[in-house]
Amino acid sequence: MSEKMLNQSAVKFLQDLSSSLPAPGGGGAAAYASAMGTALGMMVVNLTKGKKKYAQYEEDLGQLLEKFGVTLERFMELVQEDADNFLPLSQAYGLAQGTEKEKKHKEKVMEESLRLACSAPLEMMELSVKAMFLLEELLEKGSKLVLSDVGVGVAMLEAGLKSASLNIYINAKSMMDEKYADEIVNRTEKYLSEGDKLSENIFNQVKNRIY
Amino acid sequence: MSEKMLNQSAVKFLQDLSSSLPAPGGGGAAAYASAMGTALGMMVVNLTKGKKKYAQYEEDLGQLLEKFGVTLERFMELVQEDADNFLPLSQAYGLAQGTEKEKKHKEKVMEESLRLACSAPLEMMELSVKAMFLLEELLEKGSKLVLSDVGVGVAMLEAGLKSASLNIYINAKSMMDEKYADEIVNRTEKYLSEGDKLSENIFNQVKNRIY
Repeated sequence: MSEKMLNQSAVKFLQDLSSSLPAPGGGGAAAYASAMGTALGMMVVNLTKGKKKYAQYEEDLGQLLEKFGVTLERFMELVQEDADNFLPLSQAYGLAQGTEKEKKHKEKVMEESLRLACSAPLEMMELSVKAMFLLEELLEKGSKLVLSDVGVGVAMLEAGLKSASLNIYINAKSMMDEKYADEIVNRTEKYLSEGDKLSENIFNQVKNRIY
Repeated sequence: MSEKMLNQSAVKFLQDLSSSLPAPGGGGAAAYASAMGTALGMMVVNLTKGKKKYAQYEEDLGQLLEKFGVTLERFMELVQEDADNFLPLSQAYGLAQGTEKEKKHKEKVMEESLRLACSAPLEMMELSVKAMFLLEELLEKGSKLVLSDVGVGVAMLEAGLKSASLNIYINAKSMMDEKYADEIVNRTEKYLSEGDKLSENIFNQVKNRIY
């Protein structure tokens, strides 16, 4: 799934992002930012593992590498999935609504498409917060020589988190089922408040320790 | 310059970021995040220009497109330049310091290398704040249909800004010339405080208008 957009060059990804093409857009950028944050966590582990000074954390570092790796793979898939999941919604907007029957049909398809369009951003938020918790462990277990990269990683994940939230708000607002909309907005607020606090804390710890 | 790392696939860029390779690292991720933020600004302009509803802004939109384009190019170059500028520093750490003469030489080379290592992050911060001001214009002049992408753009630039600051702090701390170090730390703090305020304001305006 992830191959389509991300197998192009990193320059081409930016060029397509800047163009009027339907994808990549803000959702793809969000997933890519969180992917970079996760990759930086992996890098810190790779530059710590095997070092005598951190031998006591060797097992933990192995587990972190595994968890970062799985999360990174998923973020790469989500760049493409977010774009694919948005297609039905853009088509639903164009459905006829002349007759009562057409109107009902359009409402139903719209509702389903709005839910689908929220699924990738919700997962991005959940995974971004999870990856922040992994980075938090590296404040203690990661090599001090690359501590700044823990700070950069968390800044990338925070950008992915906040960006994904906007795509949920915008789609939740259009939903007819207010109960469902409230439910995912509540989840969104929860991820945001947890992630904001966590990333601010990690970033400031890094900053205070390097300067 | 930008071709080396960014002409590889976007997947490869993430894989290299996650590895123990010397580049890309946090600095490259910072420049790429700001490049994505700038590209999203361009996308919003491209999806607004030529629309009747925004005809009054046609000239401004043309200028924004030009400015975003130049900034995007520069961010792409900075991914590579940041890595290239870091090389002399990593070599300087390895210089001998057995004799007094060697020590003096190492100090001198270190100082020059530290300054060089700060130049790309400083420019990233300056350009990220500039690109935020361009995005701010789009709150009024950009198509309402892609308003959320203005919010995503500013979140990406904020991540680039904060990430670049860490690379300045860490290098400024090692400088012997405290006056010079203070000067660039002051510039860093100024960019940070200006950018934080601006990005928070733009992001919240977007959020409040879409939900």
